[in-house]
Amino acid sequence: MKLKPKEGLLWMLAAAAVSLSFSACKPKGAGSAVSGNAAQRTYIPPGQYDEFYTFTSGGFSGQMSVYGLPSGRLFRVIPVFSVDPEKAWGFSEETKPMLETSHGFVPWDDLHHIESSFTDGMPDGKWMFANSNNTPRLARIDLQTFRTAEIIEIPNTGGNHCSPFTTENSEYVIAATRFSVPPDGPGGDVPISSYKENFKGHISFVSVDKETGEFNIAFQLKTPGLNFDLSSAGKGVSNGWLFISCYNSEQAHTLQEVNASQNDKDFIMAINWKKAEEYFKAGKGVKQAVRYAHNKYDEHTHTATSQIKTEVTVLDITDFDDLAYLIPCPKSPHGADVNPTGEYIVGSGKLAALIPVFSFEKLQNAIANKEFEGERYGGVPVVKYESALHGEVQKPGLGPLHTEFDEKGNAYTSFFVSSEVVKWNVKTLEVLDRQPTYYSVGHLMVAGGNSKKPYGKYLVAYNKITKDRFLPTGPELCHSAQLFDISGDKMELLLDFPTIGEPHYAQSLPADILKDKSLKIYDINANAHPHKTNGEAEARIEREGNIVRVYMTTIRSHLTPDVIEGIRMGDEVYFHVTNIEQDWDMPHGFAIKGAKNAELLIMPGETQTIKWEPDRVGIFPFYCTDFCSALHQEMSGYVRVSPKGSNVAMTSYTGNK
Amino acid sequence: MKLKPKEGLLWMLAAAAVSLSFSACKPKGAGSAVSGNAAQRTYIPPGQYDEFYTFTSGGFSGQMSVYGLPSGRLFRVIPVFSVDPEKAWGFSEETKPMLETSHGFVPWDDLHHIESSFTDGMPDGKWMFANSNNTPRLARIDLQTFRTAEIIEIPNTGGNHCSPFTTENSEYVIAATRFSVPPDGPGGDVPISSYKENFKGHISFVSVDKETGEFNIAFQLKTPGLNFDLSSAGKGVSNGWLFISCYNSEQAHTLQEVNASQNDKDFIMAINWKKAEEYFKAGKGVKQAVRYAHNKYDEHTHTATSQIKTEVTVLDITDFDDLAYLIPCPKSPHGADVNPTGEYIVGSGKLAALIPVFSFEKLQNAIANKEFEGERYGGVPVVKYESALHGEVQKPGLGPLHTEFDEKGNAYTSFFVSSEVVKWNVKTLEVLDRQPTYYSVGHLMVAGGNSKKPYGKYLVAYNKITKDRFLPTGPELCHSAQLFDISGDKMELLLDFPTIGEPHYAQSLPADILKDKSLKIYDINANAHPHKTNGEAEARIEREGNIVRVYMTTIRSHLTPDVIEGIRMGDEVYFHVTNIEQDWDMPHGFAIKGAKNAELLIMPGETQTIKWEPDRVGIFPFYCTDFCSALHQEMSGYVRVSPKGSNVAMTSYTGNK
Repeated sequence: MKLKPKEGLLWMLAAAAVSLSFSACKPKGAGSAVSGNAAQRTYIPPGQYDEFYTFTSGGFSGQMSVYGLPSGRLFRVIPVFSVDPEKAWGFSEETKPMLETSHGFVPWDDLHHIESSFTDGMPDGKWMFANSNNTPRLARIDLQTFRTAEIIEIPNTGGNHCSPFTTENSEYVIAATRFSVPPDGPGGDVPISSYKENFKGHISFVSVDKETGEFNIAFQLKTPGLNFDLSSAGKGVSNGWLFISCYNSEQAHTLQEVNASQNDKDFIMAINWKKAEEYFKAGKGVKQAVRYAHNKYDEHTHTATSQIKTEVTVLDITDFDDLAYLIPCPKSPHGADVNPTGEYIVGSGKLAALIPVFSFEKLQNAIANKEFEGERYGGVPVVKYESALHGEVQKPGLGPLHTEFDEKGNAYTSFFVSSEVVKWNVKTLEVLDRQPTYYSVGHLMVAGGNSKKPYGKYLVAYNKITKDRFLPTGPELCHSAQLFDISGDKMELLLDFPTIGEPHYAQSLPADILKDKSLKIYDINANAHPHKTNGEAEARIEREGNIVRVYMTTIRSHLTPDVIEGIRMGDEVYFHVTNIEQDWDMPHGFAIKGAKNAELLIMPGETQTIKWEPDRVGIFPFYCTDFCSALHQEMSGYVRVSPKGSNVAMTSYTGNK
Repeated sequence: MKLKPKEGLLWMLAAAAVSLSFSACKPKGAGSAVSGNAAQRTYIPPGQYDEFYTFTSGGFSGQMSVYGLPSGRLFRVIPVFSVDPEKAWGFSEETKPMLETSHGFVPWDDLHHIESSFTDGMPDGKWMFANSNNTPRLARIDLQTFRTAEIIEIPNTGGNHCSPFTTENSEYVIAATRFSVPPDGPGGDVPISSYKENFKGHISFVSVDKETGEFNIAFQLKTPGLNFDLSSAGKGVSNGWLFISCYNSEQAHTLQEVNASQNDKDFIMAINWKKAEEYFKAGKGVKQAVRYAHNKYDEHTHTATSQIKTEVTVLDITDFDDLAYLIPCPKSPHGADVNPTGEYIVGSGKLAALIPVFSFEKLQNAIANKEFEGERYGGVPVVKYESALHGEVQKPGLGPLHTEFDEKGNAYTSFFVSSEVVKWNVKTLEVLDRQPTYYSVGHLMVAGGNSKKPYGKYLVAYNKITKDRFLPTGPELCHSAQLFDISGDKMELLLDFPTIGEPHYAQSLPADILKDKSLKIYDINANAHPHKTNGEAEARIEREGNIVRVYMTTIRSHLTPDVIEGIRMGDEVYFHVTNIEQDWDMPHGFAIKGAKNAELLIMPGETQTIKWEPDRVGIFPFYCTDFCSALHQEMSGYVRVSPKGSNVAMTSYTGNK
């Protein structure tokens, strides 16, 4: 394949990212103002707490992780879209339904972004939302339990990257197509080269129940074939609107790194979602037959269910003249970020050398006055660039990606190509400070930086390239985050800390919002699991045909029963293990030799189940996997498996008979 | 079940552990000497390196993790015994064979301990060994690549807890039964109450090839039914011997927390492994038919193979009078730890209130002089306690678990029940210092503390109970580690840091041993994968019946080919993705919508394969999952799936045709 000169330039730019940033790094870290007392400012003495919880997307790990700031310590990995054998997530009978989709069980996904639930534009500490990029889904994580409570599949979508961006009062969580595809249904077998005619984008508005948090796909907006990248909901004055960065305005279907980089300007799509909601409520739109899974975890039964739903309402934006507008934005924009007052929208064209800042007020005027440069894609009005523009940040750096805000009217933009974070004033557009990152920062996060009142103080740069930042660990390296103190005029680098997976985005919440409402145990009396065992006296085994249920309890230092005989080849054995502890931080584990699944890790008051199909005759030890007491090593038992048809009596006991 | 008074006492002791330690904690951390400049002493400025790599067992996570000391930062999780969808470990065609066993694929295990490979009793930086506790296996991790290179199953074993302890020159890695079971084979269907007659322990000696590291089960020692807990190989003067803690000397088969806690003394088993090796080489022992898997990852083909082996040589220790001896040891011992000179063996009875220290010299004299108190279990001589005893550490604390050593002749013992680390002198047995832990320390680790010349300086307490040490994260909390500086007379607490999984043991290696030999990329020219693609010009698809192979390359910013048509329902599609980058830290990922497996994460120079069986007609996007360049978002493509029997031509291309 031959390159045209223009293509060669683009490729160079892309390839330059690494060498540029890498060669700029010596002496290491010296380019940044590393504070002399950074050690004290990031050190949390034993027994004291971090100031912030930081919920971080795992990217290709498919999970969410929870760090403390300023220490950078990893407190928990919450399994969301990927199986986690450590916690039996996706292996226990109770959690298997969480990873079901309309097309079967999917053990992995790419958890790209997270966003907090909001009340009046502020994190309310109820839930975190997360998107999966590969098999399009949304998840809701409960912040009392730090567990995934719900997962819903998104139909008509190819790559749910532009998600889970949330409106000012969590009315909706947004999920928009990264890769346009033919809509779901029988018409999908079309030539890939027919992209312009047959491929469509969809933007889903998933409502959130105010009390329970439950998801519901309210409606979808169908759009021309485009790639939606990132978005922000309006807030304050712009509440009711949504801003989405669109690349591939060229509608290329191949060699996108060249073909989707041709236009000097792509778009930010501005959507009047309140208007769309009005139309939807008025019965507009088309009901489309689709199939998608909706999975919920019930904290009372400690069990998930997966349900298939079959219909969605779709409004085509080209059927309406007041739903969606395109704002030209240079060039292949990534971030579309709204400032705390909601007055400004920052577009970050990842191949651009300036940052356009759009004014919501000017946009509204331009729409009212029809200051359009025409229409695209069969009926979407394109607002004149200058008509919506507040102004441009000149020479900010190369390759702007993403912008967050502090509480003082400043913006912070990450630059992948020039490998730096740049601070600038949202109104004056003046560049105030810049600090290098090691290396090639992607997203960044200011504490509360996407809310109406940012907490400020800390900024974390989530860097894409690590190389020599930490002790090397073979060809595969962790990703690197860098913590800056942004409370002063200049950003101060405090700490490099490694992260797991590939964090694309994060949300910091002040510790005080969450720490006192964090659940410590599950109430054993409220446990409504159908196979709960109330106490050791009720522990038993039951057979019905070849189904054997072991009703087991676990408490320091027993698994009851600990002797089980009469299991036969061909049996399906369900160990329903109830942890009858009611003491904080007293989980027990359960594992049995030869199991083809995973372990159970059972929190106090909880019941969890492992299915076991013995594949040989003999004696199988089982044991508690979580060191719980001085006699943990003794917390074990045996199962005897006999041949099919054996007359070994079914028996279970604990203690000498 | 009624408790006898004695049993009640034991239970109280066990239950007391938590409340005892927890109530002792206020004010938090104040009981310890937290150094005034701990912040500086644990802070690694951006761009600088930690002093030590610390390889940490994941316990119930089944993986191994790599931390830096003194920062406590997590650099890498190495998948070993559990599937890891993030890295496609156990999902890619290349890695699936690594998790095969003689009874099928096992997706999870409990990685309990790790130990370094040794040359002359010092970590040589070649490999880490790890054991799996549930489905008995051993693993070898390559320290150039930080990847699992080999896994071997251990026959005749129920719970491979007492492992992977390694001899002075890595002649053997030890794997010993935690739960005795009937030997493998047809005779396993026996009553569990026939434990004393039918259940046996086995201690496996797995040899390690000096050059390649390859495992081979040289021989097994068959023992009476006992529970083996932990062990240490002799070193220096005691090289050639092995010391294993044995609990359940009562041979109880139920309610072990009571029935296996009856005897005031259990045992440390001393094994003359050089003698056993002599017998084995002389053709002694019995060849037993067994089945076990032996899995190897080939770094040239980038592919694992799993082979079933069918025979093992077993020597019954009761057939020989000079292989094994029992040393009485109070009470339910956990650790059996040999000091750096090899002169002393420390037994840690987890229900004991003193620590016996045995002298290797006195043990040898006792054996030579037959100072036995008799035999047990049909022929194993029991050495008189006093004859082997160097002395007892008096009133050291409650519930000693594990002991490591510094370079100055001191020992450090963890106490679960009294929740503290105690420093004492190995020769004088004098207690020198004690520091509380938060809470209930299990294992501890001194840098090089199990070698002939400990590095000293740092001690890490791996605590079993976390409660209020970090910001709460719902019912499930991370485990907590505490870093102490042990370079002075008194231990100084420096840092609390959270860990993932449940670390039972760790090995610290000075950074200098490893960091310069860490592999940065795989040489693309040395890549001998059978489905490697040498460059974009060779990228293609090939069909043979319903098997379709996609030969794909990945380099910034292309996946080639990026348009694929002619796939039909019923096809088995193999994406063989070769990352043709030869630049450090330039992995690419690969995911395709609707995949039922995981993603690929492909290091530079490597080829990895995902099998994909499309389950519906339509268009499926695929993309790079690891943000690699400014045009990473454009790094994507489409596959078209048509109905069975469709005549859509098979085609693949990149760029406009």
